Amino acid sequence: MSTMVAASLESLLRRRKPGHSLEAPFYTSPEIFEADLDIVFRRHWIYVGVEPDVPEPGDCMVIDIDRASVIIARDDDMGLRAFHNVCRHRGARLVHDEKTTVGNIVCRYHQWTYGLDGSLLFAEHMGPDFETACHGLKKVHLRNVAGLIFICLADEPPADIEDMARDLEPYIAPHDIANTKVVQQIDLIEEGNWKLTMENNRECYHCSANHPELTIPLFAYGFGYSPDGVDDLGREQIARYDGLVCELEARCEANGMAAREIDHLDDRVTGYRAQRLPIDQHGESQTMNTQVACKKLLGDLKDSKLGGLSVWTQPNSWHHFMSDHIVTFSVLPLSPERTLLRTKWLVHKDAVEGVDYDLRNLISVWVATNNQDGELVGYAQAGARSPAYEPGPYSVHTEMLVEKFVNWYVGRMSAHNAAA
Amino acid sequence: MSTMVAASLESLLRRRKPGHSLEAPFYTSPEIFEADLDIVFRRHWIYVGVEPDVPEPGDCMVIDIDRASVIIARDDDMGLRAFHNVCRHRGARLVHDEKTTVGNIVCRYHQWTYGLDGSLLFAEHMGPDFETACHGLKKVHLRNVAGLIFICLADEPPADIEDMARDLEPYIAPHDIANTKVVQQIDLIEEGNWKLTMENNRECYHCSANHPELTIPLFAYGFGYSPDGVDDLGREQIARYDGLVCELEARCEANGMAAREIDHLDDRVTGYRAQRLPIDQHGESQTMNTQVACKKLLGDLKDSKLGGLSVWTQPNSWHHFMSDHIVTFSVLPLSPERTLLRTKWLVHKDAVEGVDYDLRNLISVWVATNNQDGELVGYAQAGARSPAYEPGPYSVHTEMLVEKFVNWYVGRMSAHNAAA
Amino acid sequence: MSTMVAASLESLLRRRKPGHSLEAPFYTSPEIFEADLDIVFRRHWIYVGVEPDVPEPGDCMVIDIDRASVIIARDDDMGLRAFHNVCRHRGARLVHDEKTTVGNIVCRYHQWTYGLDGSLLFAEHMGPDFETACHGLKKVHLRNVAGLIFICLADEPPADIEDMARDLEPYIAPHDIANTKVVQQIDLIEEGNWKLTMENNRECYHCSANHPELTIPLFAYGFGYSPDGVDDLGREQIARYDGLVCELEARCEANGMAAREIDHLDDRVTGYRAQRLPIDQHGESQTMNTQVACKKLLGDLKDSKLGGLSVWTQPNSWHHFMSDHIVTFSVLPLSPERTLLRTKWLVHKDAVEGVDYDLRNLISVWVATNNQDGELVGYAQAGARSPAYEPGPYSVHTEMLVEKFVNWYVGRMSAHNAAA
Repeated sequence: MSTMVAASLESLLRRRKPGHSLEAPFYTSPEIFEADLDIVFRRHWIYVGVEPDVPEPGDCMVIDIDRASVIIARDDDMGLRAFHNVCRHRGARLVHDEKTTVGNIVCRYHQWTYGLDGSLLFAEHMGPDFETACHGLKKVHLRNVAGLIFICLADEPPADIEDMARDLEPYIAPHDIANTKVVQQIDLIEEGNWKLTMENNRECYHCSANHPELTIPLFAYGFGYSPDGVDDLGREQIARYDGLVCELEARCEANGMAAREIDHLDDRVTGYRAQRLPIDQHGESQTMNTQVACKKLLGDLKDSKLGGLSVWTQPNSWHHFMSDHIVTFSVLPLSPERTLLRTKWLVHKDAVEGVDYDLRNLISVWVATNNQDGELVGYAQAGARSPAYEPGPYSVHTEMLVEKFVNWYVGRMSAHNAAA
Repeated sequence: MSTMVAASLESLLRRRKPGHSLEAPFYTSPEIFEADLDIVFRRHWIYVGVEPDVPEPGDCMVIDIDRASVIIARDDDMGLRAFHNVCRHRGARLVHDEKTTVGNIVCRYHQWTYGLDGSLLFAEHMGPDFETACHGLKKVHLRNVAGLIFICLADEPPADIEDMARDLEPYIAPHDIANTKVVQQIDLIEEGNWKLTMENNRECYHCSANHPELTIPLFAYGFGYSPDGVDDLGREQIARYDGLVCELEARCEANGMAAREIDHLDDRVTGYRAQRLPIDQHGESQTMNTQVACKKLLGDLKDSKLGGLSVWTQPNSWHHFMSDHIVTFSVLPLSPERTLLRTKWLVHKDAVEGVDYDLRNLISVWVATNNQDGELVGYAQAGARSPAYEPGPYSVHTEMLVEKFVNWYVGRMSAHNAAA
Repeated sequence: MSTMVAASLESLLRRRKPGHSLEAPFYTSPEIFEADLDIVFRRHWIYVGVEPDVPEPGDCMVIDIDRASVIIARDDDMGLRAFHNVCRHRGARLVHDEKTTVGNIVCRYHQWTYGLDGSLLFAEHMGPDFETACHGLKKVHLRNVAGLIFICLADEPPADIEDMARDLEPYIAPHDIANTKVVQQIDLIEEGNWKLTMENNRECYHCSANHPELTIPLFAYGFGYSPDGVDDLGREQIARYDGLVCELEARCEANGMAAREIDHLDDRVTGYRAQRLPIDQHGESQTMNTQVACKKLLGDLKDSKLGGLSVWTQPNSWHHFMSDHIVTFSVLPLSPERTLLRTKWLVHKDAVEGVDYDLRNLISVWVATNNQDGELVGYAQAGARSPAYEPGPYSVHTEMLVEKFVNWYVGRMSAHNAAA
């Protein structure tokens, strides 16, 4: 980043008005997008997938974080490894498919051959002076948090991933990701800056008017409301919702599961939040009929009525864990005004399609919701491009988590930009 | 604009050689394109459409001038209003279709609701301290000149629009735009800088070889010629043309209509020109058979043989008013090398398709002509991109209005760039 | 080029590690791409086509070197001429089709008319003071080397093209390009920097695993190998190959043809190399069955078993001359990460399709090989974009010509950048 860009970014970060959306350049400027990649996406832990993406030795998954391409591989000892997807000879990309299974990793260009531990095993015609040991694949840091895979492109990744792991594992563990399978993945390209995708996820103020499917299982009141605008019917609904929250907490604890809300979204380098939300009607799952979509429950779970455990991590993920299935989302920036939202649906690895679950029923709520959100993100981006755009006020009752996301972002950018 | 860009622009403007096309960066440089947007398109009056685009209360039309999106709305008192198309909450674009009809303007994202006067009527969950009155839509200046709608994005728009309105209204009024309807609109994307689109419009030197349809109704001699190259046949044609001009002027004045040429293309901030041009053969309309395309004449006109009133405005429009129909053109820059040419065809609001007019007959001359011009603009752009391009000489006999356009442009750019 | 870019380029050029691929910005940076265009493509001799591309008077071929468009024309005296494809009036592109035949060169915009010698013959409406003689087409330097057409956009082109011409003509002349015809041309767009396309061409280390068709006629051993890795079978094959080289050299000399390798790839401003390579099996041609694809041999050749004469020129071409046909390749940069590879197949001008040659058989080896190479170039580009990419070591046994290409490039860039 040039000194001029750093100074201009510094000034924009300093004058950020709390409780308001960011200034336009944060959503549109190519220079700030580069700074986002440099600071946020190359120095923090980024959520990229789940253990069952690479279940067996030799399984590889390729993740592109902007121009960085990373191979996530399962080695012969069932360990998870991450390498830069770049041959050490003339730099050719090694693995081209998003998922594949290999014995060794062989470059198509001149057959340089690497083991699943990244070491260079073979390079023809290089002569006797060539030092094979110096030309292994470059490693990328990887941390497996209860089955969620995070990578960090920095040489020294933030150490507090361990705090997040310690806090989140008790919540996630009962859903036993290692014994699930990915039965659907959908990549949606949203026409907006990645932060607008994140901000859209961090509130449900927009849900009642835009998400007819999602608001069947979820309560709008669960994400905040302004008390001054509540009428008698509203008060009744809130009372009912508060009762369901107490009931659900008790039920989870009876099942030996952590249920209390934890929130470190804006007071940590590696920010996160977990909350168990009640589900309406049958109380089981985020489906159109609020019942489980998969008969075979996850892990050793016996109780289907556990609501939904929502987990959020900064800067780029959220997840919903139900008794029967998991929906997990990662956000990857493509350009200043385009973002990839990758959604995966997981069920028990032994569940049988057509017998235990119907795929369309499993995915319908979030397919519809993602498409609706993608459109809203596009509208927000179009507005942010206007010279007339100025930061507007967040609702203190319904947009607290948006504010926390923006706080985290401004804090992390300021910390690294000042250090630079 | 950075100081470096301003200095380089200043130097290019200063060394402009009169009577010659501009230097290449004016047609290709992204920095000068930004300066064009900033100085020309955000500080001058821009022609965007006609009254019948929004005939009824609640009718909205969206105009994009580069990244600025503007709503033109007809309010409940039949007034015309213009607002930035940006929600004051988190900046989402409000109206998405080019034309729509609404009761209020409601943001799809979180249902913030604005009246047709731009005031914020409703915003849920914002709490008791929120100041509704401070969050109305941002206004854009609008001036209706005898039915032609001009907007200006600047805080203080050029005042001399009033001079233009006073001068042009007597010419345009008899064609009674308010009582027309838009029966066709075609958006053509030309692969060239917006100034090449304008320069192409400002001369007919290219007509005889490129516009077989347009040169049926129009006289090539009407747009200038070099006297030294005229032979006997030419002299005959010129004499006939000069006679038709006198005859048409007399006929118009007999009908109580202004017909004398007026030209302020390069001596005003808001430049314009009007001229009534004879039409060949039947003398009625710019059609393939030179007869009116619509049986029902405009306004209270009784005489079909009024030739064509041509009106040009700087920086981005031209118009042809005949006794039976109007063709109106606006030029909107999309990128340094892409431009939108928007053409609308208007007839009397009570004319009935298939009875009073045949749509294909109405539009055929200008559809063909626009497509031919679009190709020529693409050739000019391709040439301007070459490192071998250098400004060439304009013909003093046939490219006077091109020179006036470039003079206006250089003058306006210099005035603002110096002030910056 | 700005002082900042020049300084940064200078530093990158200086620290280039011999024997290694270039640093990433040479393959990805828009600024270095501009410097490549400016220094390499606008100041050196660029190979663009062959005499039979414009066989008759009035024949024109248009070549685009980035934004420069050049007309190669055959004049009425059978001379070859090159002009900038830009009208001297308002700069419109003159010739639009890649190939066409004209009497004069007429601008479509306003009919300015130029002779095949570039002089302006006619410009209407310009008045008596207009100086026709000052408005001829701008000339581009052209050198015909035994039928290969090179152009140079600089005012003063490198003089040592004469050395190359003197050295190469004896090799190429027997194949008599002037009496061939182009029977196929294929433009392939490769998704990589032009230097990766060149580097890919300059070695056959990648051939054995990637080019099943090409390695039928060609010997992998012909392009180098590491002696330490050769087993008994390898030694046998090498001995056989060495024998074929001697045999071919003798046979060519018996036919009065130059056959000794010459190499000035990295010690000249205008770099080149020629080498006659044996062909496997029937020894005739680079076809799937190693036999001639055209019964009618080139020029006065009587012997079909002449192997293949390979000619390479810096910065942008290679060619294979067989007894029956010629395949010729030019590389033209499109953008930092996109390159045009243009391939032409030539046979004797009197050969008859379906009688003397089958087109599919003629082109099949190089169509397949080009497509395979295009994919490899794309992989190399994808890798070079990664922040983890670093220059890797070339094999001293198999990548000598890649090293020479990079040496030439670094040398030429340094010479001009220092001078700037």
